[in-house]
Amino acid sequence: MTSQAIGFIGLGNMGLPMARRLIEAGHRLSVYNRSPERAALLLETGAKLARTPREAVEPGGVVITMVADDRALDQVTLGADGVLGALGAGGVHLSMSTVAVDTAKRMDALHAERGASYLCAPVFGRPPAAAAGKLWIALSGAEAAKRRVLPLLAPLSQGVKDFGDVPGAANVVKLAGNFMIAAAIESIAEACALAEKSGIDRRALVELMAGSLFDCPVYRLYGEGVALRRYQPAAFRSVLGLKDISLVLAAAAQAQTPMPFASLLRDRLLGLVAKGHGDLDWTAIDRAVSEDAGLAPGA
Amino acid sequence: MTSQAIGFIGLGNMGLPMARRLIEAGHRLSVYNRSPERAALLLETGAKLARTPREAVEPGGVVITMVADDRALDQVTLGADGVLGALGAGGVHLSMSTVAVDTAKRMDALHAERGASYLCAPVFGRPPAAAAGKLWIALSGAEAAKRRVLPLLAPLSQGVKDFGDVPGAANVVKLAGNFMIAAAIESIAEACALAEKSGIDRRALVELMAGSLFDCPVYRLYGEGVALRRYQPAAFRSVLGLKDISLVLAAAAQAQTPMPFASLLRDRLLGLVAKGHGDLDWTAIDRAVSEDAGLAPGA
Amino acid sequence: MTSQAIGFIGLGNMGLPMARRLIEAGHRLSVYNRSPERAALLLETGAKLARTPREAVEPGGVVITMVADDRALDQVTLGADGVLGALGAGGVHLSMSTVAVDTAKRMDALHAERGASYLCAPVFGRPPAAAAGKLWIALSGAEAAKRRVLPLLAPLSQGVKDFGDVPGAANVVKLAGNFMIAAAIESIAEACALAEKSGIDRRALVELMAGSLFDCPVYRLYGEGVALRRYQPAAFRSVLGLKDISLVLAAAAQAQTPMPFASLLRDRLLGLVAKGHGDLDWTAIDRAVSEDAGLAPGA
Amino acid sequence: MTSQAIGFIGLGNMGLPMARRLIEAGHRLSVYNRSPERAALLLETGAKLARTPREAVEPGGVVITMVADDRALDQVTLGADGVLGALGAGGVHLSMSTVAVDTAKRMDALHAERGASYLCAPVFGRPPAAAAGKLWIALSGAEAAKRRVLPLLAPLSQGVKDFGDVPGAANVVKLAGNFMIAAAIESIAEACALAEKSGIDRRALVELMAGSLFDCPVYRLYGEGVALRRYQPAAFRSVLGLKDISLVLAAAAQAQTPMPFASLLRDRLLGLVAKGHGDLDWTAIDRAVSEDAGLAPGA
Repeated sequence: MTSQAIGFIGLGNMGLPMARRLIEAGHRLSVYNRSPERAALLLETGAKLARTPREAVEPGGVVITMVADDRALDQVTLGADGVLGALGAGGVHLSMSTVAVDTAKRMDALHAERGASYLCAPVFGRPPAAAAGKLWIALSGAEAAKRRVLPLLAPLSQGVKDFGDVPGAANVVKLAGNFMIAAAIESIAEACALAEKSGIDRRALVELMAGSLFDCPVYRLYGEGVALRRYQPAAFRSVLGLKDISLVLAAAAQAQTPMPFASLLRDRLLGLVAKGHGDLDWTAIDRAVSEDAGLAPGA
Repeated sequence: MTSQAIGFIGLGNMGLPMARRLIEAGHRLSVYNRSPERAALLLETGAKLARTPREAVEPGGVVITMVADDRALDQVTLGADGVLGALGAGGVHLSMSTVAVDTAKRMDALHAERGASYLCAPVFGRPPAAAAGKLWIALSGAEAAKRRVLPLLAPLSQGVKDFGDVPGAANVVKLAGNFMIAAAIESIAEACALAEKSGIDRRALVELMAGSLFDCPVYRLYGEGVALRRYQPAAFRSVLGLKDISLVLAAAAQAQTPMPFASLLRDRLLGLVAKGHGDLDWTAIDRAVSEDAGLAPGA
Repeated sequence: MTSQAIGFIGLGNMGLPMARRLIEAGHRLSVYNRSPERAALLLETGAKLARTPREAVEPGGVVITMVADDRALDQVTLGADGVLGALGAGGVHLSMSTVAVDTAKRMDALHAERGASYLCAPVFGRPPAAAAGKLWIALSGAEAAKRRVLPLLAPLSQGVKDFGDVPGAANVVKLAGNFMIAAAIESIAEACALAEKSGIDRRALVELMAGSLFDCPVYRLYGEGVALRRYQPAAFRSVLGLKDISLVLAAAAQAQTPMPFASLLRDRLLGLVAKGHGDLDWTAIDRAVSEDAGLAPGA
Repeated sequence: MTSQAIGFIGLGNMGLPMARRLIEAGHRLSVYNRSPERAALLLETGAKLARTPREAVEPGGVVITMVADDRALDQVTLGADGVLGALGAGGVHLSMSTVAVDTAKRMDALHAERGASYLCAPVFGRPPAAAAGKLWIALSGAEAAKRRVLPLLAPLSQGVKDFGDVPGAANVVKLAGNFMIAAAIESIAEACALAEKSGIDRRALVELMAGSLFDCPVYRLYGEGVALRRYQPAAFRSVLGLKDISLVLAAAAQAQTPMPFASLLRDRLLGLVAKGHGDLDWTAIDRAVSEDAGLAPGA
């Protein structure tokens, strides 16, 4: 594997530090980004610059994509200069973006037609975690392909969890995780509203909880935002939260699974967007909770 | 303080190990329990056995109560041989049970009338945490009284959080915490139902989440119960969960705070009780979620 | 029956026109109202003025109460000069106020102890319907007592429905009816918000629905209020709506019946009150729906 | 108009009686149905049988479609022998099926490109109402086209409501109406569950409500089904109800309108389908409500 160049497509806030980690771990990378300035940042590392997604791919090789959304994935994969045309039999497409379950299933089928493998490997974590190789990765797809990419995932993550070979399985996991985060935000926000309106310091409540029973990254991070009612700058915008919860509900509809908390979160986020707050961080779920309780909203 | 006997009322699954911790820390205890056999277990430790709650109290001293519910607190406090009759001016009632906010306010007023102080100090944690002195404690009440009891709380807990002097404040915090736990259960259960019906291993989902973003006691403990759909033996029965969430909503009504997640959880738990599952652990929230998704229920 | 005076307690917006109807139908009334000016309005009709509730009652006779709430019912019934002291064996208390189910059960037991009967007969309809004898009445209680009062209900109503002899049954029916009205308001409001934000005339939507599939008093009346977003003057204030929906949920808790629509309506009304809109008509449920959709609120 | 043949596509349970009404009113019809036996039923009436949708259309004429769903509408309109190819400039497509708002918008644009008009005219009512000319019709589209078709709608309906010229407006109205029906079912079901578990006759409750405040077709019809817990035979299957409420939520997402009752109804219907009850009438919403309350489910 070390003798072969890995294609890497998408050098955004997450992709760039991930590519760096791979290079530092000794992998040879052929990189592509829509705006080439981002790719240029990797020149000094010895990475090879590709002018198209296709050019980053070696037949039968491995290509990693880390792009913004379903449409971007479609373009770099299926477009005229897309990776699928060059990947060929035995090739592996390691898709690390967060996309719809249906998109994953469609991609899986299109790759299989050409003898290639499509792996879902969405990540949990933000840019600093990416830079530190501390992401968490959910992985699904064909066994042989998964074994082949594990050495690539090692320098990126502190944990890789295998979810079998059902197409799109890891995407469901990613969406379920995002749902759980949003539910935690609503839960903290309701507890804080109750506290504040009962004359209790909401920050003290969060400090106790996030320091004891809920002493974990999600409650510490979002607990602070909710306690301080600070919804900017946005690490993850409400409008994207709405998109993800809508994808959760689409997956739930397909799987025939009622998810009442998810339904409620969709209405919350839809309300935020309707009121013009779609660009606030999705911690702003707390803004709606506060408003409903007659509290002056944060910002 | 060390020269004075501390009254300790209520030697149940939580109270007994807590009393032991205090004795081991060098405090002299005068203990009372409704069924005296429990109190006898402390004889060898040098604790003095009181025949009534009142007998455990020294005028102007400190008495701790750790009883089952609002009614039991009423009896040991206001009954014919209750502690309030003996506590007198300067006395401190350190109430560690989980009771309604209104009960706390009423107790606060009754103690104040006699020049005594009523402190709310409900705990988070189960019997093993109590035995290890690893509880978390929310504290509210008069400042001077709080300073006086802090040395007693030290051997019981790994953390004490002060919530000011609003009567009942710490009870609101305890209820808010229990609400957050129930919300976490529902959230995990919905994510697991989605996973399972999408052909994904629910245990793997929980292992990933509870080992990364949600790496904290609540998600580890309840995550395992939900993943395995194991709702017995009950550490906290659904019927008690229903009682607590109803207390949350009562406090929310008083504070004029809509809490839609709490409302949904009340309906969940009410449904469990209506179907005859009130004695299952409240992890059985997952049972209802599973049933709604057409999955065979756990037990 | 016609030879015997009927006691009538409570001459408010509903009670006064009801008492008039009974007098016009040939019944002799002995009337009491807390503020005697209201009672004086009936002097010319030949009604006898009682100075206390008790004075309006003949032993073994029939007394009707139509008062504001549970507390008022308690006072006129159980107070020092209350009706219960005079009613005696064979007497019938026809209680037409909207009160809690628990209050009805308690009253039932207290009357039974004295050999008297307590009938629940809450009404649907507003003052104009009362004046026209067009109320709808739900009735529950002992069979013999019900037969005895039917001639009194005839001039008041266009329909009396018997709900058996379970204590408080008719009160549950009254609360269920008020719940159904609130649910209809929310339903119309959500449909109107969808229409308006889709560029459709909300009044045209309501006109179509309330003129066809939903051609009935509730949808016509509340449909107009929602369509026009007119929440004043209040015929039934939001704060009273909140009280009633809370009574519904209390009855539902006792009967172990999850009612998710009712839970949602409670949160809606709680939010209205929290924001200071408790004095608007409960049609203002639409105000909250509109706000959530980013529409400028009505008034 | 009377001198011109009207095309009529789709002779199902609704379309056949509607076509008959038009013929009886003196209109000349050219009819098409996928299975020609249905069309043959109209032979004796003088209707002309078309072998393809296209054959039923006269250039510049009027064609009515009344088909099962979006896909069927696509086929008869855009297929090789579809109506759009023949309709031409000045033609009017009167679309009376219940389809998605997006479908309506797309159709509107495709017709406009060819100088034809696409009118949305979904109907409220069941086959007996269609046979009696007692449907209610929501209408939207270009003014001139609407004026042209009004004489055709008269023999079909007891009321036509105009919703302007926003493409798809009448479809939103149809979906909003179906949402309101589903909300009424849930509301009646919750009230009945509360009544039954309180020892009260649910039929008596419904009789009172549907005979007074809610004396209208929806509450009479669905009230009876809920009261008797009779969910078969299905007049409108739960799986179709789920489809319609999902279309409502799709329209609500596009219009940025939170609809919490609709979200809850979606979860209800999704649960019914997940449990294998998708073929029961959507009155079976009551089945889920009953089950949650621990009542033995109806059938």
